[in-house]
Amino acid sequence: MSVVHRLTLGDVLDEHRRGRPLGTAVVDGPVRLTYPELDDRVDRLAGALAADGVRAGERVLWLGQNSFRVLELLLACARLGAIFCPANWRQSADELAHVLDDLAPAVVVWEEGSGGGVSREEVEKARGAGPGGQVSPDARWVRSGEEYEAYVAAAAPLTASVPASEAGTDAGAPVLALYTAAFDGRPNAALLSHSALIAHSMALLHIRQMEDGFTFLACGPLFHVGTMMFTLAAFQIGGKLVFTPAYEPAEVCRLIETERCTQAFLFGPMIDGLVEANKDRAYDLSSLRFVSHSAEWDEMISVDDSPWCASKMGGYGQTEVGGMLTFLGLGMGGAGFAGRTSPLAHVRLLDAEGNEVPPGEVGEICARGQNVFSGYWNRPELNEAKTAGGWHHTGDLGRREPDGTLTFIGPRLRMIKSANENIYPAEVERALKSHPAIADAAVIGVPDERFGQSPKAVVVLAEGAAATAEEVIEHVRGEIASYKKPRHVEFADAIPKKGYTPDYDALDERYGGGGYPGS
Amino acid sequence: MSVVHRLTLGDVLDEHRRGRPLGTAVVDGPVRLTYPELDDRVDRLAGALAADGVRAGERVLWLGQNSFRVLELLLACARLGAIFCPANWRQSADELAHVLDDLAPAVVVWEEGSGGGVSREEVEKARGAGPGGQVSPDARWVRSGEEYEAYVAAAAPLTASVPASEAGTDAGAPVLALYTAAFDGRPNAALLSHSALIAHSMALLHIRQMEDGFTFLACGPLFHVGTMMFTLAAFQIGGKLVFTPAYEPAEVCRLIETERCTQAFLFGPMIDGLVEANKDRAYDLSSLRFVSHSAEWDEMISVDDSPWCASKMGGYGQTEVGGMLTFLGLGMGGAGFAGRTSPLAHVRLLDAEGNEVPPGEVGEICARGQNVFSGYWNRPELNEAKTAGGWHHTGDLGRREPDGTLTFIGPRLRMIKSANENIYPAEVERALKSHPAIADAAVIGVPDERFGQSPKAVVVLAEGAAATAEEVIEHVRGEIASYKKPRHVEFADAIPKKGYTPDYDALDERYGGGGYPGS
Repeated sequence: MSVVHRLTLGDVLDEHRRGRPLGTAVVDGPVRLTYPELDDRVDRLAGALAADGVRAGERVLWLGQNSFRVLELLLACARLGAIFCPANWRQSADELAHVLDDLAPAVVVWEEGSGGGVSREEVEKARGAGPGGQVSPDARWVRSGEEYEAYVAAAAPLTASVPASEAGTDAGAPVLALYTAAFDGRPNAALLSHSALIAHSMALLHIRQMEDGFTFLACGPLFHVGTMMFTLAAFQIGGKLVFTPAYEPAEVCRLIETERCTQAFLFGPMIDGLVEANKDRAYDLSSLRFVSHSAEWDEMISVDDSPWCASKMGGYGQTEVGGMLTFLGLGMGGAGFAGRTSPLAHVRLLDAEGNEVPPGEVGEICARGQNVFSGYWNRPELNEAKTAGGWHHTGDLGRREPDGTLTFIGPRLRMIKSANENIYPAEVERALKSHPAIADAAVIGVPDERFGQSPKAVVVLAEGAAATAEEVIEHVRGEIASYKKPRHVEFADAIPKKGYTPDYDALDERYGGGGYPGS
Repeated sequence: MSVVHRLTLGDVLDEHRRGRPLGTAVVDGPVRLTYPELDDRVDRLAGALAADGVRAGERVLWLGQNSFRVLELLLACARLGAIFCPANWRQSADELAHVLDDLAPAVVVWEEGSGGGVSREEVEKARGAGPGGQVSPDARWVRSGEEYEAYVAAAAPLTASVPASEAGTDAGAPVLALYTAAFDGRPNAALLSHSALIAHSMALLHIRQMEDGFTFLACGPLFHVGTMMFTLAAFQIGGKLVFTPAYEPAEVCRLIETERCTQAFLFGPMIDGLVEANKDRAYDLSSLRFVSHSAEWDEMISVDDSPWCASKMGGYGQTEVGGMLTFLGLGMGGAGFAGRTSPLAHVRLLDAEGNEVPPGEVGEICARGQNVFSGYWNRPELNEAKTAGGWHHTGDLGRREPDGTLTFIGPRLRMIKSANENIYPAEVERALKSHPAIADAAVIGVPDERFGQSPKAVVVLAEGAAATAEEVIEHVRGEIASYKKPRHVEFADAIPKKGYTPDYDALDERYGGGGYPGS
């Protein structure tokens, strides 16, 4: 791709400083910056990072709560071709030590004990104690606040030596690293390129109808893609970004009123919190164009009819695609509650051999498109598996409905092979849980002389409900293909869990699972 | 860019056949095709073209009025990595001969005498007569209609030999060629890549709020980017595309009612034609979500509040950026009537030496971004000049207003160099025409011993108005920088024109122009 087609996050900032010289870019406590002011700070910050050895491909880590500095660090890294990572500071010292060892950042900007997090000393102690872990002598630690401000102020602007437009950053290079919740084992840092983030922003601008003048309040955590994706989309359109350290209902209400926010990062319980905080109608929340929730809420705000809001923010996504891969707003009234694919991606449902499954069958949700990530940092083997056959494998299962809309089934954590057929526990569990007497269920594969493996259901009955093993099996047979029905059923008081998903290792041990393909 | 990030027009079609198996893709007279049916036809057509030697980079030409075949030929070329060109069939035999010689297509699909156009025989005669012109023995001519249908029906689908998803088309490869109106000399075919078209569509989807279920009536010419860009955006979102050979008011009204069209390609006089055709309210046009125009019109349709419609479809664009580069909908209420830059591009105003001019100064509108074209077919020297310094040079002049919005000044056809300062005639002409006594004006450079050149205004006074040369010069001095004011003024009855722009060669000859830089 020639330079004439290039669009990096730095280029977007270049345009905003020209196109929105009077426009407020960020608000954060007493800090208010126009786009040219933000650009000037980013330029200086990039100079400071460059002086600390941050070159193309180097990493810069943020350990702290939400701040406008998250955006300016990202943009400074964008100018340098470097990679910025806002990490979850609420992790344990051991977890943060892992992040530091894994990412090996050149510069760390941190807030001491931010949001109840651990201290730098605790993190460094944990690193020293771990196998092979040692504090990198090269990492420059900068404390957010006065020290950070002095760090920025003392630097020579990057453009003093390199004209911004000539910095030569490749739009396909990764610029943002987000650690994703690991269902199993250590978290991995998903790398997202300029192109991927810009493509995702564009799709979100469209479906959310984020227009000129859009103001987003980042009140969810910026280390999570849910808040980050709206921050980036609002930046893409030259909107105003309001930062608050963390969700605090009364402060969120105050900011919505004061800054006339169009949107904030909110869902169910967070909205309930605002309704409660504003029960005496002390705050004018009418600038908020948001999703309908309750009668009280709907009276406080302006209920929005964008496809995003009208569809109750439905869809399917993950960090590895920059946020959303499908939108219910592109398939409202359809059979599948994940809607249809983003206009900048395409989706195939593939079986374990990489062949497309027909509509109505469950397969792994695989994607290609501009918003797909560039792999995980420092995980070459995993990356190869994730892009088998040239398709990004989401690790999640889905199904095409007859109208073409998509249904998300669940994570593809295990696969059972029975009589040469692939059976995904998530699909069988879904069928089991649709039985009114069943409160929870998990499915494992047990060794089977004739079929290799056969599915076994572990079932928790609803309080006061009754069902026999035969009834349970018959129910599943009526829901999905017969070969997927459990051949064995055991009743239990509870399903052991790992986060939100069944703990399959524990289940295998307790209920005789084994013989999985590839094991 | 790895295949996992790829998105071609063929990939979009792949997704729609899966995501919209029941959705109507095209309507054209008696023809109605769902997305799977369209995909099947495209697959067969691609097979037919491949059998006729259409490989990556080869050209396919359409000579005819609007038809769903324009879309399927484009998509078949997309599958093959080939380039499709819908040409203006209303051109003269000589002009079409030039197109054939220039593009050297492998396959030509034509409608005999379509829309009052010339015949194949006339074109071939003109080619034979031209210098170096001769009918390529290799071009396969296929007549639209029964012959074309037989051509498609007889072919083996491309996917019989090449799986669609593995065809390996590069999203950066050109897929569409549109001849652009040449202000000076021969027209040139602007090449647009998959990536550029998709990026442009995405920006248009956003600003036009084209959502799920959008239906576009292509009633303007598809060889022009104005109709093509909406056709492609509606395709991108999996909408319904309704084709009609050409604008015919009653038929347009009938199609809007019957197909419940959301939008059609319409502007001022075309809208007046519909109001006239529907004066007895025989047609229900309420499905049309379109721009406000007149009281009668506004009562017939649903006046739309998307930024595109609310801003009266304002902005600045050209074929070479896939349609629009800036949108008034991103700068409503701003000083510049071209609004702000598309979210997928960035703009600089550059002087003749490639340096950025400050806000308030006139410079050439230059751009980078995903929607920028890939150069003109077969014009290596022109392409080099157009991308000088890594910026696409639009050939048009613009200005940043203090609020960052853009004003389009006019085409940069000539530049005058006076006392080492660059003066663009279009800017001076704009200042002249803002005088109430001046009906029309043109500015040329005349040789000047002291300054090299000096600006001379040729002025046409409004009927019954009077102004002296001194008054005219003083007026310009009040509008723009003093060094740009004319040093000489001549009054004339009319300005000779080439299309919409002054004929500077004729003006130079008549009024003593000369000494231009580089001449």
